[in-house]
Amino acid sequence: MTHPEEAIYRAQGMGHSSGIGAAPALVLVDFVVGFADPAHFGGGNIGPAIQHSIALLAHARKRGWPVAHTRVVYADDGSDHGVFTIKSPSLKKLTESSVLSQIVPELPPIAGELVVRKRGASAFFDTQLSGYLRMRRVDTLIVAGCTTSGCVRATVIDSMQHDFRTIVALDCVGDRAIAPHEANLFDMRQKYADLMTNAELLAL
Amino acid sequence: MTHPEEAIYRAQGMGHSSGIGAAPALVLVDFVVGFADPAHFGGGNIGPAIQHSIALLAHARKRGWPVAHTRVVYADDGSDHGVFTIKSPSLKKLTESSVLSQIVPELPPIAGELVVRKRGASAFFDTQLSGYLRMRRVDTLIVAGCTTSGCVRATVIDSMQHDFRTIVALDCVGDRAIAPHEANLFDMRQKYADLMTNAELLAL
Amino acid sequence: MTHPEEAIYRAQGMGHSSGIGAAPALVLVDFVVGFADPAHFGGGNIGPAIQHSIALLAHARKRGWPVAHTRVVYADDGSDHGVFTIKSPSLKKLTESSVLSQIVPELPPIAGELVVRKRGASAFFDTQLSGYLRMRRVDTLIVAGCTTSGCVRATVIDSMQHDFRTIVALDCVGDRAIAPHEANLFDMRQKYADLMTNAELLAL
Amino acid sequence: MTHPEEAIYRAQGMGHSSGIGAAPALVLVDFVVGFADPAHFGGGNIGPAIQHSIALLAHARKRGWPVAHTRVVYADDGSDHGVFTIKSPSLKKLTESSVLSQIVPELPPIAGELVVRKRGASAFFDTQLSGYLRMRRVDTLIVAGCTTSGCVRATVIDSMQHDFRTIVALDCVGDRAIAPHEANLFDMRQKYADLMTNAELLAL
Repeated sequence: MTHPEEAIYRAQGMGHSSGIGAAPALVLVDFVVGFADPAHFGGGNIGPAIQHSIALLAHARKRGWPVAHTRVVYADDGSDHGVFTIKSPSLKKLTESSVLSQIVPELPPIAGELVVRKRGASAFFDTQLSGYLRMRRVDTLIVAGCTTSGCVRATVIDSMQHDFRTIVALDCVGDRAIAPHEANLFDMRQKYADLMTNAELLAL
Repeated sequence: MTHPEEAIYRAQGMGHSSGIGAAPALVLVDFVVGFADPAHFGGGNIGPAIQHSIALLAHARKRGWPVAHTRVVYADDGSDHGVFTIKSPSLKKLTESSVLSQIVPELPPIAGELVVRKRGASAFFDTQLSGYLRMRRVDTLIVAGCTTSGCVRATVIDSMQHDFRTIVALDCVGDRAIAPHEANLFDMRQKYADLMTNAELLAL
Repeated sequence: MTHPEEAIYRAQGMGHSSGIGAAPALVLVDFVVGFADPAHFGGGNIGPAIQHSIALLAHARKRGWPVAHTRVVYADDGSDHGVFTIKSPSLKKLTESSVLSQIVPELPPIAGELVVRKRGASAFFDTQLSGYLRMRRVDTLIVAGCTTSGCVRATVIDSMQHDFRTIVALDCVGDRAIAPHEANLFDMRQKYADLMTNAELLAL
Repeated sequence: MTHPEEAIYRAQGMGHSSGIGAAPALVLVDFVVGFADPAHFGGGNIGPAIQHSIALLAHARKRGWPVAHTRVVYADDGSDHGVFTIKSPSLKKLTESSVLSQIVPELPPIAGELVVRKRGASAFFDTQLSGYLRMRRVDTLIVAGCTTSGCVRATVIDSMQHDFRTIVALDCVGDRAIAPHEANLFDMRQKYADLMTNAELLAL
């Protein structure tokens, strides 16, 4: 994560750690079939991110951390299409019953875990995620999922804005293209979140 | 704006244009003294972005487009500090009366233009911006300001999520560091917004 | 709608009309089987409100106004239960497949109309309603549904706060109990919305 | 608080207690000079509510509960006027420097307490209140202020929707007119919040 321009951020007082609070939760962003498949929205390092998330999800459950999963879901009749589907019309394939919008078989939700249907980028935007976390007095949100430069980044900004201490699970986020993945990790670490490896997270 | 991995996005159906609707507005994000000054939060190409915004702002006023300006403002007593100020404690300097939080002298608001005080990254988060634009039946938001990789990016994601057709004013956004500036322009063009130069915007 | 204390509101400058803008839409709040049935959440004047809404919905479609319907839906596994279901545990019956959460047969949605699943009181809270209306440049929201003192009132407050000119469809809102129905009509008219009868609305 | 139609609510499973969680906070809604004065927006039992809030505020501070105060504030140039000020144009008097928008001298905020400027009805709408409470891991919100049928009711709905257990401080809410005060207490108790007297709250 060294970066030629990191010195500028340090000189201006950014990049501090926000740390971990008393009550973490885990959100798995958009680990659905269509984002695991390079023929649709996948590719890059999303496959390994899914594999590494298996241990992180098991750890979260063992520790009793609240867990949320997100899916992108649009109405069959197009009634909820918007600017996002104008920019990326292929997202319209992600309807409730489409195979592509189902959570990947490696990471099935269990009863009591929140499954968020969203139509934007952020897991918080127009969803019940914030209330779910508040009911459980969560103060720290660990974010895994895909893509790093898309819905993970958008979720991380909102998590910080909602005043959760935010952790990007470094081994558990992936993107279809590696340069945006790296660029967004840099931005998030400087401004919004801490980055932690699975080794660090599983030791919590 | 060519990018080695652009082909992946094209193959997956992203990067389409969302175009311009019937009623644009302009938002100038965080063009304040502290972000114009490399000794605080400025540097890079923020100076030229401010200069280019003078013509864009004049054009918006001439055309009667609604205009909003944002400032980052924290309470003097620290009562509204949060995770953002933990990550970047130097933001705490931006109090209501601080010289650093005042809008730059090149781009003074005029009566009737909204001045948004915000404590997060996005100009929409916990602010009245959305309602201001709705009252004026705006359907397209042109975003100028700084930094490209920070509050501009966060504002652009929310603008798209609020279902505004969103335009990044390419000559009027700047960042303290150029690599993040370029990386975020790439992400925004692929997923959230169109990019337009001043030459294109002034011809509208 | 005369009220002994109306003079106080008039003296303090309240109760003005917010009028109708250029582009109305219609939202039907929670007209679902369980709220039509006095054995569950219904009763009072909800039945007549459903009957009167048939003509209003037909009129909206004829005029090409955007239409949205809301349902209250909770997860089968209780993962999204919250404070609302603690106050009213019987709401938990309203799961996706329950007969009680289906829209009443008198007012079936047609393709292209938004069907909002909500777990709170307001049709706007954590839902895509605001974006749906913005995409269609709506500036005026006509609210029908039930209950007047519950989800209608909550939706009307948010509609006003989102800066829609707001109309309560007087013949098309109902409540299980008439005193709260009347009291809430009074509050809404003084502070948030105009009230219009079907005769007035069908003449638009 | 008996009410002829209460039996209907009981039969339908409403009106349960949501109780008190582990970490309460207190919000004082719109106790400003203009709402204490019957010549502007005051009257009714708002005066006694302010008097009773003195002890409640002292108790909250003694117990270390987070405290927030709200003011209604509109821009001097009218740039943030909206539908609320169309319905009640006299609200426009409440500018930042107006005597009428200042918190009443009986209940001055102290350093570290959040002072929310709002332009809508709810203390949560487009404000930082939710983040302020989250940073402090609050799970229960005690609501005092005025008016019961206006900004208190709107705040209470949002508090419940944000999944705070919500308490209306019965002796510390007031309204310009008593019938709406009583009607809204009834609604809130049935659906959104518990009601507690000062005697009960000061014993916590």
